[in-house]
Amino acid sequence: MHRRNFLSLVPAGLTAAYSTSLGRAQGASSLTEAYRGAASRLIGAALTDDGGWRKLEYLCDRIGNRIDGSPALMKAIEWIAAEMRREGLSNVQTPPVKVPHWVRGEESARLVEPIDSPVAMLGLGGSVGTPADGITAEVVAVSSFDELEALGAGKVRGKIVLYNVPWQGYGKTVQYRTAGASRAAGLGAVASLVRSVTPLSLRDPHTGMMGYEAGIPQTPHAAISVEDALRIQRLLDAGNRVRFELKMSAQTLPDADAANVIGEIPGREKPEEIVLLGGHTDSWDVGQGAQDDGCGLVACWQAVVLLKQLNLTPRRTVRIVGWCDEEHTGAGGKAYRAWVGDAVKNHVAAIEMDGGAERPIGYGLSIRGAKDDVADRALARAKAIGKLLDGIGAGEMTKGGGGADIAPIMAAGVPGFGHRTVGLRYFEWHHSDADTLDKIDPKEFRLSVASLAVLAYVLADMPERIDA
Amino acid sequence: MHRRNFLSLVPAGLTAAYSTSLGRAQGASSLTEAYRGAASRLIGAALTDDGGWRKLEYLCDRIGNRIDGSPALMKAIEWIAAEMRREGLSNVQTPPVKVPHWVRGEESARLVEPIDSPVAMLGLGGSVGTPADGITAEVVAVSSFDELEALGAGKVRGKIVLYNVPWQGYGKTVQYRTAGASRAAGLGAVASLVRSVTPLSLRDPHTGMMGYEAGIPQTPHAAISVEDALRIQRLLDAGNRVRFELKMSAQTLPDADAANVIGEIPGREKPEEIVLLGGHTDSWDVGQGAQDDGCGLVACWQAVVLLKQLNLTPRRTVRIVGWCDEEHTGAGGKAYRAWVGDAVKNHVAAIEMDGGAERPIGYGLSIRGAKDDVADRALARAKAIGKLLDGIGAGEMTKGGGGADIAPIMAAGVPGFGHRTVGLRYFEWHHSDADTLDKIDPKEFRLSVASLAVLAYVLADMPERIDA
Repeated sequence: MHRRNFLSLVPAGLTAAYSTSLGRAQGASSLTEAYRGAASRLIGAALTDDGGWRKLEYLCDRIGNRIDGSPALMKAIEWIAAEMRREGLSNVQTPPVKVPHWVRGEESARLVEPIDSPVAMLGLGGSVGTPADGITAEVVAVSSFDELEALGAGKVRGKIVLYNVPWQGYGKTVQYRTAGASRAAGLGAVASLVRSVTPLSLRDPHTGMMGYEAGIPQTPHAAISVEDALRIQRLLDAGNRVRFELKMSAQTLPDADAANVIGEIPGREKPEEIVLLGGHTDSWDVGQGAQDDGCGLVACWQAVVLLKQLNLTPRRTVRIVGWCDEEHTGAGGKAYRAWVGDAVKNHVAAIEMDGGAERPIGYGLSIRGAKDDVADRALARAKAIGKLLDGIGAGEMTKGGGGADIAPIMAAGVPGFGHRTVGLRYFEWHHSDADTLDKIDPKEFRLSVASLAVLAYVLADMPERIDA
Repeated sequence: MHRRNFLSLVPAGLTAAYSTSLGRAQGASSLTEAYRGAASRLIGAALTDDGGWRKLEYLCDRIGNRIDGSPALMKAIEWIAAEMRREGLSNVQTPPVKVPHWVRGEESARLVEPIDSPVAMLGLGGSVGTPADGITAEVVAVSSFDELEALGAGKVRGKIVLYNVPWQGYGKTVQYRTAGASRAAGLGAVASLVRSVTPLSLRDPHTGMMGYEAGIPQTPHAAISVEDALRIQRLLDAGNRVRFELKMSAQTLPDADAANVIGEIPGREKPEEIVLLGGHTDSWDVGQGAQDDGCGLVACWQAVVLLKQLNLTPRRTVRIVGWCDEEHTGAGGKAYRAWVGDAVKNHVAAIEMDGGAERPIGYGLSIRGAKDDVADRALARAKAIGKLLDGIGAGEMTKGGGGADIAPIMAAGVPGFGHRTVGLRYFEWHHSDADTLDKIDPKEFRLSVASLAVLAYVLADMPERIDA
């Protein structure tokens, strides 16, 4: 049944190799054979390409970091669109998006008791500021929300809460950054600090987004370096009263103008059907936004450019999207979903790269709401494509994946692929001043370009949709 | 001959085990057996001790960094002397030393062309400042002095020279920090920058001492982060003109008051003979001076305190010295040499720990001017002592060692032992804001205390001098 249906979808233009292989094998493995030639050309091109790296270098070194609301973000969007046009991509456009406009302003922190000593800090995105003369209060340190609750309002009121939580992986540790302010303020804390969410520190704080719960006073929330958090903990453990001065002039201005940036290779047979791939253009306001996510955006972009350069025009449209505002509220991803409207059903797959450009190992695939048999067939097809990437070590296809920017279209059922790497060091640089181009190995970056090009091309050219 | 002479030196009070072993073995191996009991007690005590760590914690967290001329350095010296008295050390004193008084003041750096972007920097110790409105000039980058010379005055005059020299080990790379200013100014450069001397960077600059050559204009010299150096190099390689703004209000004030800090356990038989061990009290004005060299000073100090606590009073005097001004001109080491005068000949050995408290592996030994047979015998004895430390992995005794603070007395022939560690990460933290207590593993620190205690005790108690 499945095979019959599958064959019925094979159009006339299918390569001979593919038709032949379909005659003797299941669709999945024949998919591998059908696209070996194209994969070979794409991988060869990607691994000898300098254009992607040059663009990433320009983005990092000449435009720099690109927070929502900054002139640099607009400059990046305009530059990307202009380059895409120059490269011959089609339908290049920059649909506008309103984005949050948080500005860090001047900020500083220091211990004032039992010693006067500067603290390495970064205010967290979305945080309110302090009064101009700062907030000075005693510090109480906890290593979990449970510990905070156990202290209770009696020991927290009027204090600055330090979440001195050791790195336990990003997902587990980041909750104190995102939700810590309101949890502390709910018990009467006047401000809160989070030990930077990172497995490695050289006294460098890591910023990131935070939010406030409705109905709880909004209090300043900042990251301090691991070293400073450990020092405060030691001072407290030794019986000292620790007083801390926090000064932040952070504020949230009215929403700013930004845009998603989009370019395409229109499909040769089904131009209305879309395989989307992308990363985000915005970054934090420190470092260069190299690993997060200049590399993802540019790798996806260059993958599409390589298709163009090789005249590999797939059956369906391949669309590169650079989203704005991944870092704050995901406005770019939501705006994209709204912008495509009903055409979301024509998105046959979406690929997001937003975990850095360390050595790629494969993709995770999720299809929201798919029945098991559909999900299984899709994964089998993904694995068949993955075989084309095994030669560069990037072919592992696993269940479960996606990304923040494609989440809104994935919610409508679009199959989502999340790019995966070895992930050894990403969080050492993430959201810090050290997220700079030198942290990316150009050879590893090229492997991602290669794997994105092959995956996007096959998804866009294969006769059946991945979730058929 | 050697054996006969050796036996003639054995005094009446020698342990039975030692005498017996001397009857059947060379002196060196018998040394091991003679002191196995004492070593066992000292190692056991060191590895169960918390006093050393608590002092190091106080020095780092409560006193903080301690640059020459700072109130913190004087506070540290006074605190150390007071603690030594409380611990029952003898002849505690703080002979005054005049030290250089360089102050960093306000400083900043940024690219102004082709992009306006902040640069992570630290002025170098001893550097002059810039005019109040800074120096702004085009950057020329070189990777060696040869490359600088090849450019010549024509391409260097009026520019800021960046020494973008990759890490090649401290000794090789540091010359651009120490000597780079005058080499560039000699060709007409208006300022100079050095890529931070470190094998690892998270956008954190590393400071350190620099000097000027006589007769060449004194120009500002600063370290920038590895990331910023690489970015400038990329911008130049891509054909950009790079202009840089450097602002430093650094200045050198009149010499300041400081002191060496000294405590002793007087020898029971030859109190006039001295085994010295120590580290330096001063540090740079960033971080906590934990690895450089709070750990060395406190480990030596605690080694002596453990002898005291165990009532192990050796034949000779054991003296702990905390030198001031290791970092700038070595005034503390020179002042110590002057202070001891002719008594330098009574220094039977000097041990310096100034390479951090990573896992210790042993000591390097040098005796300036010693004939080969003397040096060989001394090394053989050192190796016999080393056998007592093999059980904790710290017993490797090698030819060639010493340290900056004991160099002046070593120049007078005092045998010098330089403490050695695995040295895996020391320079990642060295002279940076990341040189903080968390970088020291208390277990590894204790191993150094143990090895120092054993080495100092045996050197002070063995019948013969190490260089006899």
